[in-house]
Amino acid sequence: MCFWWYWQKEKRVPYVKFMEANYPPGFSYEDFGPLFTAEFFDPNQWADILKASGAKYVVLTSKHHEGFTLWGSRYSWNWNAVDVGPKRDLVAELAMSVRNKTDLHFGLYHSLFEWFNPLFLEDATNVFKTRKFPTSKSLPELYEIVTKYQPEIIWSDGNGNAPDTYWNSTGFLAWLYNDSPVRDTVVTNDRWGVGSICTHGGFYTCSDRYNPGHLLPHKWENCMTIDKRSWGYRRNAQLDDYLTIEDLVKQLVETVSCGGNLLMNIGPTHDGRIAVIFEERLRQMGAWLKVNGEAIYGTKPWRAQNDTVTPEVWYTFSPKGGQVNAIFLNWPVSGTLELGEPQAKLGETQVKLVGYKELLKWVALGEKGIVIALPQLTPKQLPCQWGWTLQLIDIN
Amino acid sequence: MCFWWYWQKEKRVPYVKFMEANYPPGFSYEDFGPLFTAEFFDPNQWADILKASGAKYVVLTSKHHEGFTLWGSRYSWNWNAVDVGPKRDLVAELAMSVRNKTDLHFGLYHSLFEWFNPLFLEDATNVFKTRKFPTSKSLPELYEIVTKYQPEIIWSDGNGNAPDTYWNSTGFLAWLYNDSPVRDTVVTNDRWGVGSICTHGGFYTCSDRYNPGHLLPHKWENCMTIDKRSWGYRRNAQLDDYLTIEDLVKQLVETVSCGGNLLMNIGPTHDGRIAVIFEERLRQMGAWLKVNGEAIYGTKPWRAQNDTVTPEVWYTFSPKGGQVNAIFLNWPVSGTLELGEPQAKLGETQVKLVGYKELLKWVALGEKGIVIALPQLTPKQLPCQWGWTLQLIDIN
Amino acid sequence: MCFWWYWQKEKRVPYVKFMEANYPPGFSYEDFGPLFTAEFFDPNQWADILKASGAKYVVLTSKHHEGFTLWGSRYSWNWNAVDVGPKRDLVAELAMSVRNKTDLHFGLYHSLFEWFNPLFLEDATNVFKTRKFPTSKSLPELYEIVTKYQPEIIWSDGNGNAPDTYWNSTGFLAWLYNDSPVRDTVVTNDRWGVGSICTHGGFYTCSDRYNPGHLLPHKWENCMTIDKRSWGYRRNAQLDDYLTIEDLVKQLVETVSCGGNLLMNIGPTHDGRIAVIFEERLRQMGAWLKVNGEAIYGTKPWRAQNDTVTPEVWYTFSPKGGQVNAIFLNWPVSGTLELGEPQAKLGETQVKLVGYKELLKWVALGEKGIVIALPQLTPKQLPCQWGWTLQLIDIN
Amino acid sequence: MCFWWYWQKEKRVPYVKFMEANYPPGFSYEDFGPLFTAEFFDPNQWADILKASGAKYVVLTSKHHEGFTLWGSRYSWNWNAVDVGPKRDLVAELAMSVRNKTDLHFGLYHSLFEWFNPLFLEDATNVFKTRKFPTSKSLPELYEIVTKYQPEIIWSDGNGNAPDTYWNSTGFLAWLYNDSPVRDTVVTNDRWGVGSICTHGGFYTCSDRYNPGHLLPHKWENCMTIDKRSWGYRRNAQLDDYLTIEDLVKQLVETVSCGGNLLMNIGPTHDGRIAVIFEERLRQMGAWLKVNGEAIYGTKPWRAQNDTVTPEVWYTFSPKGGQVNAIFLNWPVSGTLELGEPQAKLGETQVKLVGYKELLKWVALGEKGIVIALPQLTPKQLPCQWGWTLQLIDIN
Repeated sequence: MCFWWYWQKEKRVPYVKFMEANYPPGFSYEDFGPLFTAEFFDPNQWADILKASGAKYVVLTSKHHEGFTLWGSRYSWNWNAVDVGPKRDLVAELAMSVRNKTDLHFGLYHSLFEWFNPLFLEDATNVFKTRKFPTSKSLPELYEIVTKYQPEIIWSDGNGNAPDTYWNSTGFLAWLYNDSPVRDTVVTNDRWGVGSICTHGGFYTCSDRYNPGHLLPHKWENCMTIDKRSWGYRRNAQLDDYLTIEDLVKQLVETVSCGGNLLMNIGPTHDGRIAVIFEERLRQMGAWLKVNGEAIYGTKPWRAQNDTVTPEVWYTFSPKGGQVNAIFLNWPVSGTLELGEPQAKLGETQVKLVGYKELLKWVALGEKGIVIALPQLTPKQLPCQWGWTLQLIDIN
Repeated sequence: MCFWWYWQKEKRVPYVKFMEANYPPGFSYEDFGPLFTAEFFDPNQWADILKASGAKYVVLTSKHHEGFTLWGSRYSWNWNAVDVGPKRDLVAELAMSVRNKTDLHFGLYHSLFEWFNPLFLEDATNVFKTRKFPTSKSLPELYEIVTKYQPEIIWSDGNGNAPDTYWNSTGFLAWLYNDSPVRDTVVTNDRWGVGSICTHGGFYTCSDRYNPGHLLPHKWENCMTIDKRSWGYRRNAQLDDYLTIEDLVKQLVETVSCGGNLLMNIGPTHDGRIAVIFEERLRQMGAWLKVNGEAIYGTKPWRAQNDTVTPEVWYTFSPKGGQVNAIFLNWPVSGTLELGEPQAKLGETQVKLVGYKELLKWVALGEKGIVIALPQLTPKQLPCQWGWTLQLIDIN
Repeated sequence: MCFWWYWQKEKRVPYVKFMEANYPPGFSYEDFGPLFTAEFFDPNQWADILKASGAKYVVLTSKHHEGFTLWGSRYSWNWNAVDVGPKRDLVAELAMSVRNKTDLHFGLYHSLFEWFNPLFLEDATNVFKTRKFPTSKSLPELYEIVTKYQPEIIWSDGNGNAPDTYWNSTGFLAWLYNDSPVRDTVVTNDRWGVGSICTHGGFYTCSDRYNPGHLLPHKWENCMTIDKRSWGYRRNAQLDDYLTIEDLVKQLVETVSCGGNLLMNIGPTHDGRIAVIFEERLRQMGAWLKVNGEAIYGTKPWRAQNDTVTPEVWYTFSPKGGQVNAIFLNWPVSGTLELGEPQAKLGETQVKLVGYKELLKWVALGEKGIVIALPQLTPKQLPCQWGWTLQLIDIN
Repeated sequence: MCFWWYWQKEKRVPYVKFMEANYPPGFSYEDFGPLFTAEFFDPNQWADILKASGAKYVVLTSKHHEGFTLWGSRYSWNWNAVDVGPKRDLVAELAMSVRNKTDLHFGLYHSLFEWFNPLFLEDATNVFKTRKFPTSKSLPELYEIVTKYQPEIIWSDGNGNAPDTYWNSTGFLAWLYNDSPVRDTVVTNDRWGVGSICTHGGFYTCSDRYNPGHLLPHKWENCMTIDKRSWGYRRNAQLDDYLTIEDLVKQLVETVSCGGNLLMNIGPTHDGRIAVIFEERLRQMGAWLKVNGEAIYGTKPWRAQNDTVTPEVWYTFSPKGGQVNAIFLNWPVSGTLELGEPQAKLGETQVKLVGYKELLKWVALGEKGIVIALPQLTPKQLPCQWGWTLQLIDIN
């Protein structure tokens, strides 16, 4: 996704060399437009995979910093997916398929600025005292996507070092929350102008791959990518460039226990596919969530986030059932798990391993916590791999 | 040039079938962008040919109704020749080469409306009560080309059935003539909004291929094409589709004698060339003008435009030399040319054939005109082909 | 790989429709040639992955039934990877990289016939009484690849319903084994003409995905594909279309215990990559073989192939160590594994779990076999997943 | 047509630079194959134009030195116009259209050798002691085109510095003249192996653009091109690069008067058109021949070829009418033409100007020839431009 920037603005050598070796002189980023064909794009298949991942919401990048809109924006004539390349309204198609799934919400990412848009560059040269770009491009497009696609999330990005007054973010958000068709449902993030990130707005995103490891007072999100280095699809990525499912479960568990949501990004191919390795990771995550979802969905942070005695144990609290969930990422060789945070109540506390029928035996250590005896299970008996959930019922 | 319109708006069968037979389904007009390569575009070569044609001014179509700008307009991002296709500023390059020729002026054609621009279509749907399109596209672009390229002619076209108030033509023209960098030199035509054509503005164009055959009270221009049917280059045109040099000389002579200028259009190829048949016609015209130019350049209409007795004789008046020019398109078999309009003055009137040394003999017919004896010339002795000029000196 | 055949010979509807929807009319298979670019082909990376898979030999499809040669064959001018598309000798490049790995052998697949080669079709029309095709194409190419690349395996395929006399297989093989540069090392298979498959030649391949499940008297190979349905790369394949690593380990174990070799096929992309999902499967296989390789490499079939009491247990015999290997694909819930075939010798027999230090306890059942107590292991303690090897030492 | 050779063998700088500037690295000549589309190829239109030129025979380049066959040769699989590019049998289509015209014969040019064919290069390296190439490519193709298209002319070319024994020309020609389907009608030229040109064979071609200016004892042909520098179409050719119609008429007249035939070459475009400038030249030639054809078609050389007194006068003899034709390329300023060769017979000799009704007056000069009085004609009365024919009847 940052290819254009690395290639033509930063002129990174591998990018420049790759283009020189494989394209005619003068080939421009815009020339990729007709090559973005999306002939295999099947929004129902996407929705199946996304639903199977256990996700509760989907955020499509409707327009990134290169300014190409995946819908037929009337403000981005001939630089959008209806006029060029796929010749399809990808936003509309995915919106419908996602909404046909129960319990799966649809949102849109939108970049305010555009790297190479000459109107933006002109405004920037004028130190943002002119506002040609937001008035003719960004703002009309924001109103357009809200009105046409009624997203439940607006994931704003890319302030281009301009203040929110330049973007008129306040004006737009006032309309969005008071008068727009999604005023009762929409959620937004914090990237609406210089200085707003991590301090103002809806949920905080702070930085890409933000994962603080401790509780935050404000709603937040860890937006990260399965490809360790890229938000877009890289043809030359190898297995080692992708996070393993163990890494991903760890990210999820850490994020949720600290009060955040996880936005797990995949980059589709030029021909409209979710690469099979991404599909595998998404389905693996879904398989894990199918077993352990009760410790993730609808939970709140507990008084402690991770354990003081055993590393890689993360807590969540289920308001519905009232139990504390201790998700442990390593199965102890000893067969017993010592937890320093929970304090058991004799005769009351119950400990369950999610996916295993019997109650577990445990020993209270008073203020020092609890020791839990895990069952002996063969590989197939394990309720899941990559992380296991203990439900601690009636515990302090 | 009208390909897009015929193909996708009118859906003319040959156009639709051609596209179906030769391009993948979904191929759009925009997909031609990267195929417009102009790799053979040599502006100096163009200027040589244009100069050799005897033209005194060149008008480049900077943007036609499809909205693609031949310069890198900041208001037409990714739909212009710098971002897409040639990756060159064709307007700048041709402007420089044309200006390097002495006595050759440079102007720009510019279409106000754009067939498929969604902002224009939106305004049209609103019966032009909104003005999104002219404020964000047409007007900024007009100011841009005037400021950047300082054309001596603005050849406006394409009102899109909208009034001049929609286009704010008055405002733009006021700036153009009072404050713009070309305020002292610029000339414009009459296509600035519904109702203005042939009634308001600089020189009148009235209609394409306008050639009234009689004197007009206002400055006017006959804009026509060497290809009988198209302003753009047609790969499938055959010899029969082009006007012959006899046709072209006739157009020129008729137009000038009636007080008009001739704009003779050629359509360049996708790879930036002037097709050789066009080059031939232009050089033939230049060869004719080299001999007969004095009867064309800087002339004024005479009291009569064509002759009452002999058809295909057209008059012009040269203020400099004071002579009347009678251009005859057919060499009479008899060897004598009878003219009904000029009245000779015995002892004073002189008759010359341009390109031939000796004075011609003549006989005055009083009010009935004059009979002139043409010399006997072999093919090589003829000063030119396709039309000959008699200079009538001291004649009434 | 069979795309051409399905599309243009069988005219399967999805193939025909896909081409109609995405390519211009008249687009031919040959037009894919320049689109096969292989710009990401890195033979060292391929060799790394192939080596990491635990493979001992690599067989590259030097030419499939479409006749396109991956080397610059002088008998396939302009229909080979040096003249068209990659402009590289892919055979030479991969050969070098594979040979730079220790203990990794290099072979070549070669199709005798070519679906649409007009010379072959002419011979076929003549009921193979003419031999234009083998004399001008197949045989010269076979000699060419043996001489240039000295493959250790010639994996012949595609008799086109013609007898070995048509192909002159006997003549070629006589040269190959007696006079060729690889006469001392080369191995071949059984596909050299109608009737030879599974009855004559080197190792038998019998049919694609051949996996008989019982011991065969002759050397044989199970050639199969990770993609359940295709030998080539299918862009539209989804996760479900690929065999899981459990499936693959099962194929390997069954094949080896019955005396066969496993040829596990992957199809590379048009741009020269091994898709990441293939890389993952190959590395998973390598991880399994790293632990259990001693029960696979250099083994011979034991007197029994699989167990009579417990399903999914397969035996091999290691001549070097003299032990019997029992590979079990399901870890018993009971923690004890009963085997009906091996007969323990009291005081002599030892049982080891590969990857686990301690000797296992067992109870002999006399002629009824042996019962083995498996250790209790946490997920991380398991020496591997997907299949475990017991070494039975001093056993009958 | 020689593009490939100049670019990659001779590495001429302008060719190399053009390719570097406009194509990706590694782009090969073969990659032009799919770009040769011929979508505008209309063989009936071609035949109309060719017929209108006055030609009596058409010779299509069925295969030039690059080896690409314009028919679907089974010996040039995937390097022919049916498999690649047009996907049409251009030879068959043009043959039919040409034959539908009365009095227009159809022939085929065929290059024996191929610049870059690896089999030819191998034979050449072996000093033509091996004959892989002619036996598998050239000869089978020659038999194929004769059998399939029954050409009335085989215009052989390109011996590649190999003797006729290498090409087995004698064997082929024996078959052609004795056993082939065209044995009674076919004509061939003289390019069948080193040493045969201008000494053996049917009509002699000697060298490209051969125009000796004097009588030759053997049938011969002047094969030349309208583009002064190229046999193929050059997109970058300008008007000045083409011969004028005056040049062409001169070539024709000189050639015929010396006993030769004229082969006037045009190079078609990649999209299958005859460029309009070529069409114009061909139709101009046809217009001239319509008037003067009797002095060209079916004539024989006269005892003199050109005149001793007046330059640019060429003679032919019409056996049918018995008259001598004197074609003069310059109309004398004096109005009288003096000829030194013909000797008039008083009271018998008649002199006519072709296209003019009246007999001309003349004065005999005895052995010194004849002086002829030309009529006074206006431009439109001239029977033609570019050359005029005098018929001298009953003259010595």
